[in-house]
Amino acid sequence: MTAPNIKEYMEARRDLAEKALDAMLPPEDNEPAVLHQAMRYSVFAGGKRIRPVLAMAAAEVVGGSGKQVLPLAVALECIHTYSLIHDDLPAMDNDDLRRGKPTVHKVFGEAVAILAGDALLTYGLGVLSLPEVSRTYRAENLLAAIRELALAAGSTRLIAGQVMDILCEGKDVDKHMVEYIVRNKTGALIRASLVCGATLVDGELERIEVLGKFGDLLGMIFQIRDDLLDIEGDPVKMGKAVQKDGDRGKATLPRLLGAERTEEIMYSLIRNAEDTIRPLGETANPLVQITHYIGKRVS
Amino acid sequence: MTAPNIKEYMEARRDLAEKALDAMLPPEDNEPAVLHQAMRYSVFAGGKRIRPVLAMAAAEVVGGSGKQVLPLAVALECIHTYSLIHDDLPAMDNDDLRRGKPTVHKVFGEAVAILAGDALLTYGLGVLSLPEVSRTYRAENLLAAIRELALAAGSTRLIAGQVMDILCEGKDVDKHMVEYIVRNKTGALIRASLVCGATLVDGELERIEVLGKFGDLLGMIFQIRDDLLDIEGDPVKMGKAVQKDGDRGKATLPRLLGAERTEEIMYSLIRNAEDTIRPLGETANPLVQITHYIGKRVS
Repeated sequence: MTAPNIKEYMEARRDLAEKALDAMLPPEDNEPAVLHQAMRYSVFAGGKRIRPVLAMAAAEVVGGSGKQVLPLAVALECIHTYSLIHDDLPAMDNDDLRRGKPTVHKVFGEAVAILAGDALLTYGLGVLSLPEVSRTYRAENLLAAIRELALAAGSTRLIAGQVMDILCEGKDVDKHMVEYIVRNKTGALIRASLVCGATLVDGELERIEVLGKFGDLLGMIFQIRDDLLDIEGDPVKMGKAVQKDGDRGKATLPRLLGAERTEEIMYSLIRNAEDTIRPLGETANPLVQITHYIGKRVS
Repeated sequence: MTAPNIKEYMEARRDLAEKALDAMLPPEDNEPAVLHQAMRYSVFAGGKRIRPVLAMAAAEVVGGSGKQVLPLAVALECIHTYSLIHDDLPAMDNDDLRRGKPTVHKVFGEAVAILAGDALLTYGLGVLSLPEVSRTYRAENLLAAIRELALAAGSTRLIAGQVMDILCEGKDVDKHMVEYIVRNKTGALIRASLVCGATLVDGELERIEVLGKFGDLLGMIFQIRDDLLDIEGDPVKMGKAVQKDGDRGKATLPRLLGAERTEEIMYSLIRNAEDTIRPLGETANPLVQITHYIGKRVS
């Protein structure tokens, strides 16, 4: 599969995820309207929907279809968006812009932003248990997916990464700690996207394990590219200020090792990820292409 | 069952819940330690564990035992505690004291408080899907309980009540809006405690429906007593400042209708709750006694 094809592949799945989000999220005029407006404002601020695309690609790798896991796509995007809303809060990274738009607390105030994040997290962890969703899957697979999501989003993974990201600001930290942040802050939910996507369509356990290992690597690649973009990215393409991590003294690999050495590490992770997923055969080709896309993206 | 007995009944179940929380919550030295310390600090700040007691009592009403639903007790208390941590934040109610102790953000800072709340919510919604828990129950019952918890904690119930509670501060609001806040802010999780407790032990649908109706009434009774305590309670017994709602112009029934009329409404709700639950027979006696206890409590 060549580069333009993978773009189409990702766009097709992003569009499906977009429609599923619009169809499933509570409407804006649901009481309280301001809360549901804030939820939709943040969810539809224009993300790349990487996690939904990964979940769909993983379902395909084990013999299912992307469409089969759209409720999971919704869950992942809600959990991801909640984490962004809370990360942007004044008490955390205090960011005014996200994807080129004012952040949720800038538009709706801090209280509504905290609560909109809470509501998206709650919706994301609950959506797979809704009757209209759950009748499509085996109950055991749904419970396994919910468990994986909750662990990935929980106090020893996503939130652990975020806590350390904030507590290490401006401090001298070693490579071990930077890797801990990189692995957990983004990696946990990337991994869960792949594992849950394959689990829901009843994938073979051995293939799911491979997807999990691949997901760990892909998560690190994603976060490292993010950290590189912060030091050398184009603020117009990114829709947010750059070089903020450096100003804040964030614990990132580029800050610790320099951009060149960090790129080397990233490209070695890409090779590692490729080697991990290749044995799954031709159906894994899109995941290989996505890995390269993520490693080279400019926003 | 006489009054001293119900106290023993509640204390026995509170102790079971306490032990289950201590056994199940991640240990304090789990990385990141500060996050897990904050989670345990808030969970073990000394609550009455009303929701766990209700879940256990509901399990008993449909022929199960309280011990059978201890993981649910943990889920409920984590979700409840998360809501308290976030409610207390400077951007929300800005409370310095809770149950006689400094609030989480006062001890651990705002960022860790937000994240500890997020982690407790995530843990609470995920705990029923853990392997060591889920093998004890029918998968369909687990999914039904997770759905009920997520809906109760979600954007149209618990969070809706909290949004309105904050947005209506200092405004002229009608009885309809005050009832909306009362019904959702506390009522949703009280109702879910009862419904999930009975669901997990495979209770009869008709009895679960009755428990749901009773839960709606009990939730309102609980919140109204809370609002009455704010205007006439003893700050030493309560472990927090009183008359703060009035100072802030919170939309409460006592503020709208006066204490006397509010008490009348509450006692009529108690009679209504009693009439609703009585048909379930002798096993519902503890719930009748708990209703009176909640209506008359002084802290």
